[in-house]
Amino acid sequence: MQYHVNGNLVPAEEATVSVRDRGFMYGDAGFETLRAYGGTMFEWEAHANRLRRTCDVLSIDHGIGDGELRKRIHETLEANDLRDAYVKCSITRGVQAGKLTPGPADNPTVVVIVSELPRGGKRGTSVWDAPATAEIVKTRRVPDHALPAHAKTHNYLNGTLARLETEADEALMLDLDGNLTEGATSNLFFVRKGVLHTPSLSGAILPGITRTVVLELADELGIPTRTGCYRPVDLRRADEAFLTNTTWEVRPVGSLGDTELEIGSVTRELATAFDALVESRHY
Amino acid sequence: MQYHVNGNLVPAEEATVSVRDRGFMYGDAGFETLRAYGGTMFEWEAHANRLRRTCDVLSIDHGIGDGELRKRIHETLEANDLRDAYVKCSITRGVQAGKLTPGPADNPTVVVIVSELPRGGKRGTSVWDAPATAEIVKTRRVPDHALPAHAKTHNYLNGTLARLETEADEALMLDLDGNLTEGATSNLFFVRKGVLHTPSLSGAILPGITRTVVLELADELGIPTRTGCYRPVDLRRADEAFLTNTTWEVRPVGSLGDTELEIGSVTRELATAFDALVESRHY
Repeated sequence: MQYHVNGNLVPAEEATVSVRDRGFMYGDAGFETLRAYGGTMFEWEAHANRLRRTCDVLSIDHGIGDGELRKRIHETLEANDLRDAYVKCSITRGVQAGKLTPGPADNPTVVVIVSELPRGGKRGTSVWDAPATAEIVKTRRVPDHALPAHAKTHNYLNGTLARLETEADEALMLDLDGNLTEGATSNLFFVRKGVLHTPSLSGAILPGITRTVVLELADELGIPTRTGCYRPVDLRRADEAFLTNTTWEVRPVGSLGDTELEIGSVTRELATAFDALVESRHY
Repeated sequence: MQYHVNGNLVPAEEATVSVRDRGFMYGDAGFETLRAYGGTMFEWEAHANRLRRTCDVLSIDHGIGDGELRKRIHETLEANDLRDAYVKCSITRGVQAGKLTPGPADNPTVVVIVSELPRGGKRGTSVWDAPATAEIVKTRRVPDHALPAHAKTHNYLNGTLARLETEADEALMLDLDGNLTEGATSNLFFVRKGVLHTPSLSGAILPGITRTVVLELADELGIPTRTGCYRPVDLRRADEAFLTNTTWEVRPVGSLGDTELEIGSVTRELATAFDALVESRHY
């Protein structure tokens, strides 16, 4: 396997960053997780936009264009002869003088790592082998005033601690007021009386790319959707629920704590539509 | 310069971690900043205890004893012929399978970096050349329910964003309820009518080692101390204020926003006592 580090393809075992890189010392970095189907990236523009917004929040003015990033990702996929793949692209503020206050990102660190991922969907094997088990944990989502949730950064201990609390596949976090936010690595959807619900972006929620795609698909399919502020009881009363992220795509929730959930018709319809969308774009 | 990485001394420019190290990917690591005076570490036991508690919070069961860590730090100091030095020791969960939920820390990453630091105090030059400028910023301290403040981790974007808001030397953060917590890298003290105040550890505060030493010195000197929950107005009404951390020791606050502050007698007395303590322990 080869990774891309600062403009060069290197063997995975030699792909490293300095112990003084701010990405290592402080998690001072933005990243995107992407998926390639058939050699091209799904929703590249949305991911590139979000990475740019993350770097804006962190004031990492790295000066690397979207086209250059895309080129490096494609070089990495080609070097590994991968067409269906997981891709992670990170940009850190690089090595700077030994104090917390950052200087200009004149020498950012850019890393692309890839791994094989089954294509899933209509023509392949799914990434996950069963509906997700989920649990609402005690760890609360970091509030926006401390660290904006729409920035996707290397500060991922909040989700890590959430996951450490449970044996379930996904740990669902509440905000400090007890409202549903999201999973450690996924957005949450639930269906009640035929209406699709998901926490709105006014909460401490990452604006998931798959989340947006699913909301658009629901509109196209005539499924009524609502975004808002929800309590755990709303989820417990749901007829069906699912999680979305780039890797899982649309993954049904099979249980919430001790309560089992059926894979419902809305979830199935959206998963099928998502697969069809992928097939229509990536031959 | 040589650093210590996973048991080996290596030239600083070759001191790296894998791009798949969880310390890099998620800031999934605990650390301590220490100071060596005259070749021995100040308050080693307190730092070792706090690092152990941090790793407990993160469930990083690394299995490396305090004695071994101390040995690696001393080897690094000796290899660089340093007696008065800044030391940073980090332990990460290492490289693991490609998912957020951590596995056992069977192969942790241990990094020691050092740099020269003037001794300060009675016999040397101070690390800082003037009292600190400070400002209360808009970024709020991450609450304990999201990430316990007593764990000192590589998730340092909260403090980084706070620092980015201001030109001041230190960014003071409030909690979500508007109470004073601490600076991005320091604990806050202020004096009002001869009484020393500092936010109590029941808030979202790192239990600073220097903070504890200063509270003990105040007791010994007969300075009345109070810990509690304070508002910005309490700080604005203060007669004097100072910041503490391992590097700065006791650093007076010279201004809070636009308001100038005198270096007061309590601050001077504690700084002098701190210097004397260092001299008494580290010849």
